[in-house]
Amino acid sequence: MRVVIVGGVAAGMSAATRLRRLDETAEILVLEAGEHVSFANCGLPYHVGGVIPERAALLRDADGLARRFRLDIRTRHRVTAIDREAKRLRVEADGTASEERYDVLVLAQGAEPDALPADGSVPVHALRSVDDMDGIVRVVESGARSAVVVGGGYIGLETAENLVRRGLAVALVARGDQVLHTLDPEMAAPVHRVLQDAGVDLRFGAAATGVVDGAVVLEGGERLPADLVVDATGVAPRSEPAHAAGLELGPTGGIAVDARHRTSDPAILAAGDAVEKRDAVDGGPVLVALAGLANRHGRSIADVIAGEPEDAAPAIGTAIVQVFGLAVATLGWTERRLLAAGRAHRVLHTHPAQHAGYYPGATPLSIKLLVDAETDQVLGAQITGRDGVDKRIDVLATAIAGGIPASALSRLELAYAPQFGSAKDPVNLLGYVAGNLASGAAATVQWHELPGLQRSGWTLVDVRTPQEFAAGAIPGAVNVPLDDLRERHGELPAERLVVHCQVGQRGATAARLLNQLGHAAANLDGGYRTWRDAEATRRHETEAAA
Amino acid sequence: MRVVIVGGVAAGMSAATRLRRLDETAEILVLEAGEHVSFANCGLPYHVGGVIPERAALLRDADGLARRFRLDIRTRHRVTAIDREAKRLRVEADGTASEERYDVLVLAQGAEPDALPADGSVPVHALRSVDDMDGIVRVVESGARSAVVVGGGYIGLETAENLVRRGLAVALVARGDQVLHTLDPEMAAPVHRVLQDAGVDLRFGAAATGVVDGAVVLEGGERLPADLVVDATGVAPRSEPAHAAGLELGPTGGIAVDARHRTSDPAILAAGDAVEKRDAVDGGPVLVALAGLANRHGRSIADVIAGEPEDAAPAIGTAIVQVFGLAVATLGWTERRLLAAGRAHRVLHTHPAQHAGYYPGATPLSIKLLVDAETDQVLGAQITGRDGVDKRIDVLATAIAGGIPASALSRLELAYAPQFGSAKDPVNLLGYVAGNLASGAAATVQWHELPGLQRSGWTLVDVRTPQEFAAGAIPGAVNVPLDDLRERHGELPAERLVVHCQVGQRGATAARLLNQLGHAAANLDGGYRTWRDAEATRRHETEAAA
Repeated sequence: MRVVIVGGVAAGMSAATRLRRLDETAEILVLEAGEHVSFANCGLPYHVGGVIPERAALLRDADGLARRFRLDIRTRHRVTAIDREAKRLRVEADGTASEERYDVLVLAQGAEPDALPADGSVPVHALRSVDDMDGIVRVVESGARSAVVVGGGYIGLETAENLVRRGLAVALVARGDQVLHTLDPEMAAPVHRVLQDAGVDLRFGAAATGVVDGAVVLEGGERLPADLVVDATGVAPRSEPAHAAGLELGPTGGIAVDARHRTSDPAILAAGDAVEKRDAVDGGPVLVALAGLANRHGRSIADVIAGEPEDAAPAIGTAIVQVFGLAVATLGWTERRLLAAGRAHRVLHTHPAQHAGYYPGATPLSIKLLVDAETDQVLGAQITGRDGVDKRIDVLATAIAGGIPASALSRLELAYAPQFGSAKDPVNLLGYVAGNLASGAAATVQWHELPGLQRSGWTLVDVRTPQEFAAGAIPGAVNVPLDDLRERHGELPAERLVVHCQVGQRGATAARLLNQLGHAAANLDGGYRTWRDAEATRRHETEAAA
Repeated sequence: MRVVIVGGVAAGMSAATRLRRLDETAEILVLEAGEHVSFANCGLPYHVGGVIPERAALLRDADGLARRFRLDIRTRHRVTAIDREAKRLRVEADGTASEERYDVLVLAQGAEPDALPADGSVPVHALRSVDDMDGIVRVVESGARSAVVVGGGYIGLETAENLVRRGLAVALVARGDQVLHTLDPEMAAPVHRVLQDAGVDLRFGAAATGVVDGAVVLEGGERLPADLVVDATGVAPRSEPAHAAGLELGPTGGIAVDARHRTSDPAILAAGDAVEKRDAVDGGPVLVALAGLANRHGRSIADVIAGEPEDAAPAIGTAIVQVFGLAVATLGWTERRLLAAGRAHRVLHTHPAQHAGYYPGATPLSIKLLVDAETDQVLGAQITGRDGVDKRIDVLATAIAGGIPASALSRLELAYAPQFGSAKDPVNLLGYVAGNLASGAAATVQWHELPGLQRSGWTLVDVRTPQEFAAGAIPGAVNVPLDDLRERHGELPAERLVVHCQVGQRGATAARLLNQLGHAAANLDGGYRTWRDAEATRRHETEAAA
């Protein structure tokens, strides 16, 4: 059996090495268009910033891989056409063409960065390959003093941070009013804060249209001059030459595959950023360009070829990025997307410390959880914080995989010592809050509902201390501290009350108390902190419109 | 309704505050024998060491709690008898006795430290209460220069570390040949190393019999002189006066309760370290003295009283401790216990880095997973490492709660960026290894099986490089590096082969290859590293016997 694998990075090399472990007799040819196989994509920005000083640390020794797994690895070999009838590939290398026969073909070509139109007046680089990285390092080391990063996704943020680390003045152009569209607006505010605190010139609202005369030009005409432009606007699946050969593409433009990674041609399998995945929330088609899935599905392809197939799980899209010390992790759908799809859901925000408050180093997390209103299943999660973020998103991803309802997160037995968590871990607390919402023991309103309620005459009661109230309050709020509420509740109207505190916990106690004292009160979910963060992001919208 | 709660720390105060949130009308009386309610038990050792400099950080303001939740809190009040017929308690405070009536009684008295016989020649303290802590701090600050800590459990280790931090010469007396009996012997070796590297005089084999004439006396007569003795030998459930009142105790000595925390008297509920729990592995009775369960079950008691009951989940016993920078986390059963119970299981050891190796700060984890041989469910896990340990144990605890089989851990979508994990996270790798064992794609032998196999003529092949082999090898091993195996396998016998590498991964590849080349080979699980750690712990056994 001759297996040809097109693409030798995450999915491709996982398929190759696993297949060899399963089958010593297969002939395995890996064709990689770039110079390097199995390199560390996700490390590229950190070599730019000098965090990973040794370039070699990102590279795998192709000869060593070839020897250990008896692979025929050919780099700088580009597949230009697939003849499915004859099961032959057309391959170009060093300007000369050749043909390769296959019994089984594996497509793992990844994704192609979108390219901003550019006139060549400034160096413009994406950051997807080792060549891209080398290009950026050359420009930085030749004395560049300023850079514009176009795109507020993972790579854009990581590159901005690492260019700041190298001493460049960095502007970052984000589409719309926020970075990271896997976050809802209020959850993006802490990310904006760390970027701005680090001196990044954050530009919202206007998309970049191109690079002209030494500057990035924005819609509306503003020019951002720079010595270096990093183009991180986005990626598209590399679906050529699959598409030209008549393989089916999905509605997202990715190669369509079934749960066993088979394309519309039974002799051709595909995995990685080039293929379309199935969404865990609605079962629909989705593009998820993440290394974990690429590696896993690549490895699964070998199992399929070796006759030990297993269906791929739908993708929940768990992802994490660190920006100037702030970790940002997400999975599933945003509230924005759930609202657009009309899917009934519950929202909850919490701001617990990542570990016991009495132990040195406690720092707050901000967590948003989106829960199916009918099934109580977790549909999405967003977490920011300086520490402990990766743990909580991984626990939630595992809970989703295990079908654990949101309310039952309270019952998870998570490890507790004061350096690592709390006797009631932040994930347990999510379960308690979700349970209270599900049972009706708690009622909440979201930050975006507050203006409408206030306009229609609801009373907003701030139950924090007078000191906290004086330090910054929501317009229109009256201050009745929680511990005075039993004595003073008579001052408040019987109905249409929204209470709030700093992070939501005292507010929940206050709402319970008022409801038991005969009022009808709801708690502002996430408290002052979530409201303040939402306001901060909303200001970008206003500024961009101005 | 008058609810009396006996014990005002984890379980008791969780019950009290939750009950108030659910029911504004209940009369709630909290009787605490000590001076403090709701204090931070798990922080006590760290105030001894000065890590938490402010003693007040560990204490909750009882008046504030009483006001916010309208509780009648009485400290230094000890319940001496329960009259179940009359629903009355006998209470002693300041030497005077009184009576209290209850409609519902909640017992949350925690556990009592075992006490080493002592002649008063040296200060001896447990470390369970604020008083204990204050006593130790007084001795340390009065110029103590040496301490003996008796007991190698969580509190013993944390106290030893914190006394070293204060400059004391510390000896630690562990029963048997290892600390932390939630670990199998090979997994305890890294803990012994960090203790010894920090200068702790570790004493194995001989139990302490008492404190006489200024020294801890060991079985066999050896004397360990000290200015301070910390007695952390263990705890027993505080089941008096429940027992005297005729409430049923379980076989472990803890108060017997059902899944809704009800004792044998329907008007009396109980939670926390005083009660017996149900074991998640075999459903049997078990004592688990952990703060997370105490808090959770205490809170659940309020739900039961308020008429919103939910069954408690069986306990898997997830726990973590940090010792001199090394984190040690466990859940479920050890291999020792599974073997003793005759339960069919699979064992796997891995030693992955906690995050991408190319990113600075990568450090190894050692993971042991115990898997049910029939159901593929995880029965136990043990993890040590400097970073990322808490995350992996929590993911495993969640996977168990969700019924995710060990092989399916490979499919978890865990968050990946190079600071946080790997594209194939250590938990995913466990899934791959478990899947290979389940399918028969891999066969392994354990370190404790190796001597027997070698005695009966099996050949041990070390597939590491000659450099690694020269730096330290298992007696009797022959060295054939993995990358030479295709050429040199003819040198090896056809059958009865055990291969090994440093951590198990190259060994797995080697075993696959040899089996495909017509040999019959198994891989030494966990490689040289697990074997070396097992040897290190076994030496204590030999030393103790000598």
